[in-house]
Amino acid sequence: MFPQDYPRVNIEAVKPQIDGGRYPIKRVIGEKVHVSADIFKEGHDKLAALLKVRKVGDKDWLESPMTQGDNDQWHGEFTVTAIGRWEYTIEAYAEHYLSWVDEITKKNLPGANIGSELLEGLAIIKKGAAKAQKDDRARMENIIAALEGALTAGEHAGAVELGVGSVMRSLMAKYPDRGEGYQLTPSLQVMVNRPITRFAAWYEFFPRSQSNTPYRHGTLQDSIRRLPAIKAMGFDVIYLPPIHPIGYAFRKGKNNSLTALPDDVGSPWAIGNEHGGHTGLEPKLGTWADWDQFVATCRELGIEIALDYVMNCSPDHPYVAKHPDWFFHRPDGSIKYAENPPKKYQDVYPLNFGTTDRAGLWQEMLHIFLFWIDKGVTTFRVDNPHTKPVPFWEWVIGEVHRVHPEVIFLSEAFTKPKMMRLLAKIGFAQSYTYFTWRNSKHELTEYVSELTGSEMKDYFTGNFFANTPDILPPILQIGGRPAFIMRVVLAATLSSVYGIYSGYELCENAALPGKEEYLDSEKYEIRVRDWQAPGNIVDIITRINRIRRESAALQTYNDVHFLSVDNPQIIAYAKMTADRSDIIICVVNLDPFHKHSATLQIPLDLFGIDYHEQYQAHDLLSDERYRWWGPTAYVELGPPEKMAHIIKIRRW
Amino acid sequence: MFPQDYPRVNIEAVKPQIDGGRYPIKRVIGEKVHVSADIFKEGHDKLAALLKVRKVGDKDWLESPMTQGDNDQWHGEFTVTAIGRWEYTIEAYAEHYLSWVDEITKKNLPGANIGSELLEGLAIIKKGAAKAQKDDRARMENIIAALEGALTAGEHAGAVELGVGSVMRSLMAKYPDRGEGYQLTPSLQVMVNRPITRFAAWYEFFPRSQSNTPYRHGTLQDSIRRLPAIKAMGFDVIYLPPIHPIGYAFRKGKNNSLTALPDDVGSPWAIGNEHGGHTGLEPKLGTWADWDQFVATCRELGIEIALDYVMNCSPDHPYVAKHPDWFFHRPDGSIKYAENPPKKYQDVYPLNFGTTDRAGLWQEMLHIFLFWIDKGVTTFRVDNPHTKPVPFWEWVIGEVHRVHPEVIFLSEAFTKPKMMRLLAKIGFAQSYTYFTWRNSKHELTEYVSELTGSEMKDYFTGNFFANTPDILPPILQIGGRPAFIMRVVLAATLSSVYGIYSGYELCENAALPGKEEYLDSEKYEIRVRDWQAPGNIVDIITRINRIRRESAALQTYNDVHFLSVDNPQIIAYAKMTADRSDIIICVVNLDPFHKHSATLQIPLDLFGIDYHEQYQAHDLLSDERYRWWGPTAYVELGPPEKMAHIIKIRRW
Repeated sequence: MFPQDYPRVNIEAVKPQIDGGRYPIKRVIGEKVHVSADIFKEGHDKLAALLKVRKVGDKDWLESPMTQGDNDQWHGEFTVTAIGRWEYTIEAYAEHYLSWVDEITKKNLPGANIGSELLEGLAIIKKGAAKAQKDDRARMENIIAALEGALTAGEHAGAVELGVGSVMRSLMAKYPDRGEGYQLTPSLQVMVNRPITRFAAWYEFFPRSQSNTPYRHGTLQDSIRRLPAIKAMGFDVIYLPPIHPIGYAFRKGKNNSLTALPDDVGSPWAIGNEHGGHTGLEPKLGTWADWDQFVATCRELGIEIALDYVMNCSPDHPYVAKHPDWFFHRPDGSIKYAENPPKKYQDVYPLNFGTTDRAGLWQEMLHIFLFWIDKGVTTFRVDNPHTKPVPFWEWVIGEVHRVHPEVIFLSEAFTKPKMMRLLAKIGFAQSYTYFTWRNSKHELTEYVSELTGSEMKDYFTGNFFANTPDILPPILQIGGRPAFIMRVVLAATLSSVYGIYSGYELCENAALPGKEEYLDSEKYEIRVRDWQAPGNIVDIITRINRIRRESAALQTYNDVHFLSVDNPQIIAYAKMTADRSDIIICVVNLDPFHKHSATLQIPLDLFGIDYHEQYQAHDLLSDERYRWWGPTAYVELGPPEKMAHIIKIRRW
Repeated sequence: MFPQDYPRVNIEAVKPQIDGGRYPIKRVIGEKVHVSADIFKEGHDKLAALLKVRKVGDKDWLESPMTQGDNDQWHGEFTVTAIGRWEYTIEAYAEHYLSWVDEITKKNLPGANIGSELLEGLAIIKKGAAKAQKDDRARMENIIAALEGALTAGEHAGAVELGVGSVMRSLMAKYPDRGEGYQLTPSLQVMVNRPITRFAAWYEFFPRSQSNTPYRHGTLQDSIRRLPAIKAMGFDVIYLPPIHPIGYAFRKGKNNSLTALPDDVGSPWAIGNEHGGHTGLEPKLGTWADWDQFVATCRELGIEIALDYVMNCSPDHPYVAKHPDWFFHRPDGSIKYAENPPKKYQDVYPLNFGTTDRAGLWQEMLHIFLFWIDKGVTTFRVDNPHTKPVPFWEWVIGEVHRVHPEVIFLSEAFTKPKMMRLLAKIGFAQSYTYFTWRNSKHELTEYVSELTGSEMKDYFTGNFFANTPDILPPILQIGGRPAFIMRVVLAATLSSVYGIYSGYELCENAALPGKEEYLDSEKYEIRVRDWQAPGNIVDIITRINRIRRESAALQTYNDVHFLSVDNPQIIAYAKMTADRSDIIICVVNLDPFHKHSATLQIPLDLFGIDYHEQYQAHDLLSDERYRWWGPTAYVELGPPEKMAHIIKIRRW
């Protein structure tokens, strides 16, 4: 087949792009997208390239010129200013006027006959003038007339001056001939969300534990009373485990016992009973009016609500009677409960995403999201998304974003790396990570470098939880209070998005022997706590969150720079804003049992500090200030206190 | 839009692929394609994956199972056995039977009631049996009957044995249920050509210089007489500069003089006069009958002919009169000659690929290829392809390959790296390289690693020319004979495809002062040579080519392993076959003026040699044999002789 048309310019290797453009990159409002591409053409033409951007669905592109760097790589950038899907592409074209300027300048030698070349330039300029706006056209026509005059008079050098002069150049730059160009298709996409997607402190708590009275089931009203303290600690997002009616069948007792006692409250993750399912509210927590008041209070306090989205159904869930075909069946027709042999979860029926009524099931799953968005939820922490088909998530997130592009999805997939990445690629804005299990300097450096320094940073935002109701990591069990301080500093500074599960501030660390599970886990019982218990680290967490709010550097996710340190137990890393107006160095003792000292190598070149220059190191945690000088610095860290420095570097 | 169907398995990161599958990878007949991909699925299903391959246009896929490696990466490979375009893709599916085997094995505990699970397995097995061939079905039905009997008798453990036994496993493996699978689309492509694409020694010569009589214009008959000597040196491909009629207008004289004397023969690259153009034969070279005889002699000798494909037209070219619209015009209507200001090439008119008669011009350019293929040419060395639109080359190579997939295109693009790569991606089988200008150990190591160790090896084959009529590099000008030996060893062993331009074997190195141009360049005059001139390196080149033919390692292009050497003037590298049956170490003195010695680090692990093992180092150039032992070896190299070792490593 003879090609009807062909790309007149080669545009290759456009970055960023994920998997050849199959998936969007991600940004939050106000962030920049730096775009680079290899752009070149046969022959000697001068080229021009435009970065073209629009919101998906818009008609007109916003264009900005790209600039040529080394080795045929061109660069441009744009800022995303609204939530939703954006698309970007590149148009490049031969710049005939500039090619002519280049040619005529080279040929304009004493005695050379360049009359023909001047006529060619005149034609190009006239083409530009024909497209020009009225005033510009008049100015161009004056120069054209002068140029023709010089040509007629045989004053070639003078004609060249007029044709290539700065006045004509700036006018011609406004009216390029883009006919022999090429626009890359298809375009690439950006998924844009709110800044809280990339900078937030999360706090997880169980409303039913908020009564302050032992054995009394807490309510939403109790939770409302708890909110100011959470806000005072500096948290932006509260994450609620499921608040739906809890099933009775095979209800789990305390410590995951197979036999529940009559007053056992059950696991909130076994959803559904006669009071309703995923769009129901557990009656013991209160009424819809209480919920609305809870939402309103959160709004007043500037707290967002993240709700657990859990696709488990208790055998008592209304779906079981209404849509038995949504479940897996045994040969005898009975519904199968969840299993991970030899483990059995008789209190939970998994859904069959490949059911013959797939449209019915998938649409209902979408409906649950829309229902809670309508009820004031802005974020969903999605439970075990890796156990459902990835294309389902791509579809349902797309459907939600079509009407509510501001909604944030957090993937709770503690699973294999490739699946975790793919879930991020298809639309989850945030992801749980392996941070909880990364303890040594080597492990943390390698893992955080992968997350924030590789292509992953364009699509995967790790939400670093220091603990969860499912995970009480060994370091906290054995390291006690110094470990709790150390780990929360790491979580809150290695990532711009982090979280804790309530009880962390009390350094709760009683575990089931040999497991990462909490003893007397709140998953199966009500836990009433003394929030002022001795040894708590509320003040430290409060300070960390304030430091984060006041530091632009700590609000960036990308590019954690690890420093060279001569003690394997001390980790140090820098974060900074692109303009280096805020530079933070975090230094953390990873050993909760022993004091350590170390010498850090300070990357002065990276910071833009001269080697002979003194600078101030202000520890924002202790409020101590040091005068540093040169490329090394000495530090000493606790325990019991002073497990970390969060140092702001200030130039005089 | 609700998705009508969806991929049941995730298939990501398929390798090899070039730019998301936009361009084919390349292989030669008999080579393997190792394919890897990340393959995973939600939940706990066991997966199976098939690598599917076919020639483009074929209906049926050849399938082979992939095996699961670490981190969800699966691997498979296929061998390409015919010239042309192949395509490959992956189909993956949930292996229900194996998932069931896994589940039932875990659940088959003393006292467990697994009757329901056995019924599920029975259903899966019956589905397999229904698809089985007659004999297999009978065997399966026997086991099914036995299994049902055990089930009825309540002998669950026995029923499991029958269901998961090796007999049933091997039968079920033949009849998997691929219903819940996914085949990746679109497929990826491989461009397959003959082995000579990846392993060849090229020799460039001017037929008009072959008369052996000063001032007499050589002929094809003279060239026929020269062929046996070229073959005896071990060359497989002879590359002829243009053999078409040469224009008279603005003909260049000796040493590129602007004024030709009456007996000056002109540049063969200024094509076309009254005797014809690109499909014409310069009458002084002989007749079409001579050409046919030349082709026949090459065939007998096992030599392939590479013809220069040059899109220049002399002002006397027939196209100028017949298709003036194919050229660029000045405002006064005259045709523009080639320029690279301030340089002028009045003897050459460039073609306008964007002409309004684009179809006419492009089809004619295609016709030239087809004409010469019909005349026995199998390879085209394409002159300056980077000065024509890349989409033209993609089209024209595609059109040629549609009827002549065996034809090889060599890109003579000494230009910017991105353009050189793109020309290889769109179909040029071989490319000229920067080898000629890479002299130091660092430069050679970096460049060859990029070519043979990066993704480039899948699409870019560098043809390492040691000299060309346009390039007499400084190292040869100043280094003399030792440099000629050193550089031909490098060319012939760093790449499996290399070439020299005639005169190299005579160490001709007289240059225009301060330039890389030959003095009295053969481009503008006839050069008659004494092929037995003293100091020639015919024997050395002959030996190198014989070593290459006898060494499978030197016939591989990929993965040159550079060795650590303690002397910056000595470079050493290993090439080996995948099975390590042939291991070659080349050691070259890069300094043509001084003897050097060095200690090499021998990568014994790579070679599969134990640290306590003795091995033989057989220098195939000198035929000397050394007994080596351990991970270091000492070498001493010339000048004047012994500039290099080409060592075959032999285990006892």
